[in-house]
Amino acid sequence: MSVRLVTSDVCVPMNSAREVLTDAGVAIEGDTIVALGTTDDLRARFPEAAHRHLSRRVIMPGLINAHHHSGMLRGTAEHLPVWEWLRLHIDPMHRVLRPADAEAAAWLCYAEGLLSGTTTVVDMWRFMDGAARAADALGNRVVTVNYVGEHPDYDYFDTLDDNERMLREWAGHDRVLPWVGLEHPFYADEAGQRRAIRLAQEYGTGLYTHCSESELDVQMFRERTGDRPMIALDKWGFFDTPRTMIAHAVWLDEDEIALMSHRGGSISHNPISNMKLASGLAPVTEFLAAGVAVGLGTDGEKENNNLDMFEEMKVASLLGKLRAMDAAAMDSWQVLELATTGGARAVMQEHRLGSLEVGKQADLVAVRTDTPRMTPLITNGPYANVHHNLVHAVRGGDVDLTMVAGEVLVEDGALVRADLDRLIAEVHRRVPDLFARRSAYLESVGEPTGLFTTTAGDES
Amino acid sequence: MSVRLVTSDVCVPMNSAREVLTDAGVAIEGDTIVALGTTDDLRARFPEAAHRHLSRRVIMPGLINAHHHSGMLRGTAEHLPVWEWLRLHIDPMHRVLRPADAEAAAWLCYAEGLLSGTTTVVDMWRFMDGAARAADALGNRVVTVNYVGEHPDYDYFDTLDDNERMLREWAGHDRVLPWVGLEHPFYADEAGQRRAIRLAQEYGTGLYTHCSESELDVQMFRERTGDRPMIALDKWGFFDTPRTMIAHAVWLDEDEIALMSHRGGSISHNPISNMKLASGLAPVTEFLAAGVAVGLGTDGEKENNNLDMFEEMKVASLLGKLRAMDAAAMDSWQVLELATTGGARAVMQEHRLGSLEVGKQADLVAVRTDTPRMTPLITNGPYANVHHNLVHAVRGGDVDLTMVAGEVLVEDGALVRADLDRLIAEVHRRVPDLFARRSAYLESVGEPTGLFTTTAGDES
Repeated sequence: MSVRLVTSDVCVPMNSAREVLTDAGVAIEGDTIVALGTTDDLRARFPEAAHRHLSRRVIMPGLINAHHHSGMLRGTAEHLPVWEWLRLHIDPMHRVLRPADAEAAAWLCYAEGLLSGTTTVVDMWRFMDGAARAADALGNRVVTVNYVGEHPDYDYFDTLDDNERMLREWAGHDRVLPWVGLEHPFYADEAGQRRAIRLAQEYGTGLYTHCSESELDVQMFRERTGDRPMIALDKWGFFDTPRTMIAHAVWLDEDEIALMSHRGGSISHNPISNMKLASGLAPVTEFLAAGVAVGLGTDGEKENNNLDMFEEMKVASLLGKLRAMDAAAMDSWQVLELATTGGARAVMQEHRLGSLEVGKQADLVAVRTDTPRMTPLITNGPYANVHHNLVHAVRGGDVDLTMVAGEVLVEDGALVRADLDRLIAEVHRRVPDLFARRSAYLESVGEPTGLFTTTAGDES
Repeated sequence: MSVRLVTSDVCVPMNSAREVLTDAGVAIEGDTIVALGTTDDLRARFPEAAHRHLSRRVIMPGLINAHHHSGMLRGTAEHLPVWEWLRLHIDPMHRVLRPADAEAAAWLCYAEGLLSGTTTVVDMWRFMDGAARAADALGNRVVTVNYVGEHPDYDYFDTLDDNERMLREWAGHDRVLPWVGLEHPFYADEAGQRRAIRLAQEYGTGLYTHCSESELDVQMFRERTGDRPMIALDKWGFFDTPRTMIAHAVWLDEDEIALMSHRGGSISHNPISNMKLASGLAPVTEFLAAGVAVGLGTDGEKENNNLDMFEEMKVASLLGKLRAMDAAAMDSWQVLELATTGGARAVMQEHRLGSLEVGKQADLVAVRTDTPRMTPLITNGPYANVHHNLVHAVRGGDVDLTMVAGEVLVEDGALVRADLDRLIAEVHRRVPDLFARRSAYLESVGEPTGLFTTTAGDES
């Protein structure tokens, strides 16, 4: 297979040395990076290679969105704390969602991600066969996580049978990586929890769930188990999997962080969602200090309300500084690592994804530098600012080329494999009917019941 | 003068009824809005008018950036708390800044603002004649605020003589509105403070200063005066002006908020800067409840590090929710008002700017809706989401038309009156020399002294 060179004025490979290379890039063979270096070096090593130089661009690894739900409720479920928001908007939507809705949402969300530099997304969503088809067609990578409820109270979600079907049918796909999901540990009964853990073990894959997003979560665990959430999950065997990943983990205490480190759990940090739903300030600096693998996630269109990992990086930096009341906290390299190598490690893909290094997949994005946001651009010396600009100034819209597995999926800021207008139109076509079905459901039940009421018994 | 119609699929005029109009827009005569209504109504009233319909767009008032410093240090002064950052980077820059540097910075910053929907910017910057020329040429509005030091320790800033020259020479300009500035109340001696106040009174204009940005500020005021900052300023006569505006005001207590309300002071809230410099969480909800006029500001390229008022709106919402630990706090309409009518009121321009209403200036922007970020778009009913999408999903890059005073300044996402590439190149041309002069200055003095040391005597 022939080698191609992709170079640019500036290359940020996100290697452990935190290098910033000028007039540099990668050599790619098929889907794999076979060399990283300056343009001159690469041309000398591969004189026959086709060469594309991206002028006035920074190239860097594609971003990994470590927590996402596809969806089409953007901006329609606002100004409610997380449990009320679930009760009044999200849960009723799940009851009436149909496979074709779910697939249309995945197509548009993955497109939004690709257009803003996300090459891999961890998507907890419904009817994941459609999501996998969308990723297969659009070209992005997806870690599919079924939104599973395995409990009589939550029988309107995907099931572990659905999840096992994903594990079987998409095994071996290069870009679709099925994991096991639980909406929340309490959305499964004991047998369900045990089966979820067993599935992850049997298929050698990860287990993904939301936990400790709000303080109420901690309180519920304590009431039911006497333990804080991570301690309880560990006793139930949740960390006896190849990898168990916790979305949010806002309210972990010191012992729980130590446990995550010791037991190899990973975390998705979702700062915009945590602020927007008033969930709290996650102890990210402490996670990193303890060596826990942490990725960065946008959460969904209904929690954020966009899927721009550059924006998420900026808010991660801002929130980290505010939490510590220290402008030096959560520095720009740490934030860039959350969105690249950290996310890769969190989903056990650090051998393939997250940086531009030899042997890894050729997943990269080009960020425009011919913008006010990238001015000035200084690549070396005491005032080098490429990393700071990428975190604090650049927006997802500055990405104009996205490549996954060596293939260009966004060119000149437009999707290569799909027509964005058609994806938007399809969502607009489906939303009124989805909302009508949800309204009919809500009318049929009167006031929807609170979550966890049946099992826990004593929440208001 | 002939009337022109500008309409769109959706129009958010930001009137007090918080209306969202569909298939609607404005009639414009010269620089002034003469009617607001549906396309059908406007066409019936003005059958001869030229008509431009902006399809797949939301039109809304141009945004008002209530706190900004032009500059060209983006990303080069990071990870320091506000006083150290001033001492090591910003203050030394002020000592070596030249008029041509300042003007080049203003051109690029105003261009960045226009391209992301900012039509009016309050710019505290240096050598403001150049900034006024930039605004005059580019077409935006600017409230010029000289960065004045009127004190032997701060003799390297603009002076009140410079400021008075601005007040005289740019009086009566339609789009350049000179105010009186002080970097900080302590950057002037007593005579300087009195003269700044008198200038604002004599010229019937506003006085603008930074105050209560960090907790240290409160501590310094207490040490020097025994009072908290707003109380001290009031005793010194700072609020005996047509309008005194305080940038940041993070650390105001209940009495100070009541004083601001009673004395007609206004505030710029700058959430990204306050997070990035770890300054704190401003009590914006309390300001609004007390009836204080509050605008929203990006602060400068070195504090933010971009000038995107849509991003600023999102972070204002997020930070308000986090501060209150209430997902219903800082609702989307309140945030939109900060960036439009609130800013107009804060700078005494509510009769001319801030909303699309009859008699006001035709300052408007068109936001693309043919994007994932605006999907779905629902204009009425219980799930109406235009306002939520504008705050939480849209980015400044979604603006593709910006009009000021009836004239289109950004068309198809590009500047009409200047070549962006040339503005960027000019900044890149000047930065190395500016940095070299600053390095030379820093070498000449050894370690730069702390701020406020001479006068206060006891800070470290």
